[in-house]
Amino acid sequence: MVKVNEDYLKLRGSYLFSEIAKRVNAYSANNPDKKIIRLGIGDVTLPIASSITDALHAAVDEMAVKETFKGYAPDLGYEFLRKAISENDYKARGCQIEADEVFVSDGAKSDSGNIQEIFGKDNKVAVCDPVYPVYVDTNVMAGRSGDFDEATGQWKNLIYMPCDENNGFVAELPKEIPDIIYLCFPNNPTGAAITKDKLQEWVDFANKNGSVIIYDAAYEAYISEEGIPHSIYECEGARTCAIEIHSFSKNAGFTGVRLGYTVIPKDLVRDGVALRDLWARRHGTKYNGAPYIIQKAGEAVYSVEGQKQIKEQIAYYMNNASYILNGLKEAGFTVYGGVNAPYIWLKTPNNMDSWSFFDKLLNTANVVGTPGVGFGAHGEGYFRLTAFGDADATKEAVDRIKNM
Amino acid sequence: MVKVNEDYLKLRGSYLFSEIAKRVNAYSANNPDKKIIRLGIGDVTLPIASSITDALHAAVDEMAVKETFKGYAPDLGYEFLRKAISENDYKARGCQIEADEVFVSDGAKSDSGNIQEIFGKDNKVAVCDPVYPVYVDTNVMAGRSGDFDEATGQWKNLIYMPCDENNGFVAELPKEIPDIIYLCFPNNPTGAAITKDKLQEWVDFANKNGSVIIYDAAYEAYISEEGIPHSIYECEGARTCAIEIHSFSKNAGFTGVRLGYTVIPKDLVRDGVALRDLWARRHGTKYNGAPYIIQKAGEAVYSVEGQKQIKEQIAYYMNNASYILNGLKEAGFTVYGGVNAPYIWLKTPNNMDSWSFFDKLLNTANVVGTPGVGFGAHGEGYFRLTAFGDADATKEAVDRIKNM
Repeated sequence: MVKVNEDYLKLRGSYLFSEIAKRVNAYSANNPDKKIIRLGIGDVTLPIASSITDALHAAVDEMAVKETFKGYAPDLGYEFLRKAISENDYKARGCQIEADEVFVSDGAKSDSGNIQEIFGKDNKVAVCDPVYPVYVDTNVMAGRSGDFDEATGQWKNLIYMPCDENNGFVAELPKEIPDIIYLCFPNNPTGAAITKDKLQEWVDFANKNGSVIIYDAAYEAYISEEGIPHSIYECEGARTCAIEIHSFSKNAGFTGVRLGYTVIPKDLVRDGVALRDLWARRHGTKYNGAPYIIQKAGEAVYSVEGQKQIKEQIAYYMNNASYILNGLKEAGFTVYGGVNAPYIWLKTPNNMDSWSFFDKLLNTANVVGTPGVGFGAHGEGYFRLTAFGDADATKEAVDRIKNM
Repeated sequence: MVKVNEDYLKLRGSYLFSEIAKRVNAYSANNPDKKIIRLGIGDVTLPIASSITDALHAAVDEMAVKETFKGYAPDLGYEFLRKAISENDYKARGCQIEADEVFVSDGAKSDSGNIQEIFGKDNKVAVCDPVYPVYVDTNVMAGRSGDFDEATGQWKNLIYMPCDENNGFVAELPKEIPDIIYLCFPNNPTGAAITKDKLQEWVDFANKNGSVIIYDAAYEAYISEEGIPHSIYECEGARTCAIEIHSFSKNAGFTGVRLGYTVIPKDLVRDGVALRDLWARRHGTKYNGAPYIIQKAGEAVYSVEGQKQIKEQIAYYMNNASYILNGLKEAGFTVYGGVNAPYIWLKTPNNMDSWSFFDKLLNTANVVGTPGVGFGAHGEGYFRLTAFGDADATKEAVDRIKNM
């Protein structure tokens, strides 16, 4: 008789966004005349830039002709894209990351979910709290979390690193030494950025202890201030301790196009094994590469016109972020993020809990956001709004909240 | 100090197709004037059909306009595609598979690699021998294989089901009861098909023992004979014991487009858990859906024009298969497959081992095939040729082999 993976059964019932959808649907059903504005899920709304759709069309035309048709892609990604990534996202910033240290994939969610697989089960995992749920859930599914503690709302074997107003939402080095450390900056959900000096402390800590940092840089394109690293490889020694995960979803609007990449430097060796080789083996065994036409779209992101167009899109979303940030401040809310990230992290008024504030916002302003507690116990009393909406709708949402 | 996944380290060094590439490259370097014909790797060569590229172009245009832009896709696939699959691949054949039992993915390789994850580590796995290496390697990586036995060329904890001339390359029910059974029909690499009656025996066996069959139907579009099931759900009782994996790679030429799907019926329950729910949770946690434009391409496969065009492509490849099969027979070889599958399985002459025959074919005919032993110990003494090449090149290859 087959046995199911019991670690899967430990997962908590309802995923955050399902619960949100349920409450929104219930409200809509009872109030069909109300116009709901969604600033909850981090999905983009601007269309794909023309330089990128041009590349998509051209690639489709190649696929339609025998002489230029492309079958199986290289598992690790086409050289043209890996080279463009290496040149533009790394070498141009002074980071020595070679094309053969870049692994193209269908997105940062897959990579950040699958990366834990190259590590043994008996590793101690540290996550920020609040945190992007994928890091936690995939380690639960792999049997590294232990049991869930209903009292604390935390998994017993994970190391939680609280991120709150006291530390500016940037975790401090944990007392218990973790083997695997997940960091995401600019942060989802808090919108916090980390300085280069502070990130260097993490790199030094990991190198000293033989830990590995899984650095999620999905939001780096939103950095507007100086002194904020766009890549962990800007820090000295990161090549021996860090894996970096990138997405095209948020810089180029690829949430429905699906493209991302992970960097594992050749110098990152543990137990005498280059982690790069393990990840290459995983790709080779369980993956058949991202579609050719999508990889051509990725290449177009790095063209002169592509860079110009995606910068305009980012500016559009960051205008939304400013409007939300300033509007909520004017309305007397305490707000964070929104400067180097497309997320605004709002402290709920009068110590209201996150879900109560969610309901209040939905019922009185007809605005949907994301309850902070959905990202972890230390997200309780906070609330996330995203800047990825339509500009007019975002303004209306903020004005409604101000009038609440 | 981080620990790596030691099960990854058990994997055998070189992947079959890397070794082939190495030998071909070495030969080419020494013989730059020779024109090599590749009938080795199972990659398609015909361009994507026009009805499908039309759908791709139209979908790209949708992505270029704000009103029709699509962000995150549903994790499990767009309803339009799941419904088309349910209607065309199942209900039209009398199989009651609903749209919500279909999970769209980026391909059969990912799905057949990832599916084992929903099962516990302590399951006994049975594979055919020879076999598509992904089933074996992913179970090695998950810790289910035990150690490799150099003497037998097999993993100690796997149940191997020999497929050879004695059983017509269709495995017999194993004496030791497996928990998980991988079957692939029409078969890669042998090209063998299974009758409905024989497959029914497997379904009955699995239901009796509480086993789960992972049925890889990637090549079903190549079935030309009556009485050969296109889906395991044509068998009575399969809904309570079988998972079926499909690919668009081989029926519609999507090796570089990337699309596939997996079916898990709601009735498939073990340990009181619906396996469908576990797989849904995996998709939801580690995957963000196949690209919208690719799913629209998948939908076009089921259009009237799409069906007509892909049937022509399959006929083209099956003409190749006939030419190889008949040509090699004329040349005195013992050959199998090629009737309900795009693979020809050839017995090497004079008990030559597979790699020696590979070298001989490369050196004397400049034709590349795949050594049978690369698919498992019982593949020794066999050799795989694929029908996916260009028709003229395939004819030339066969003529060269005949003149060897």
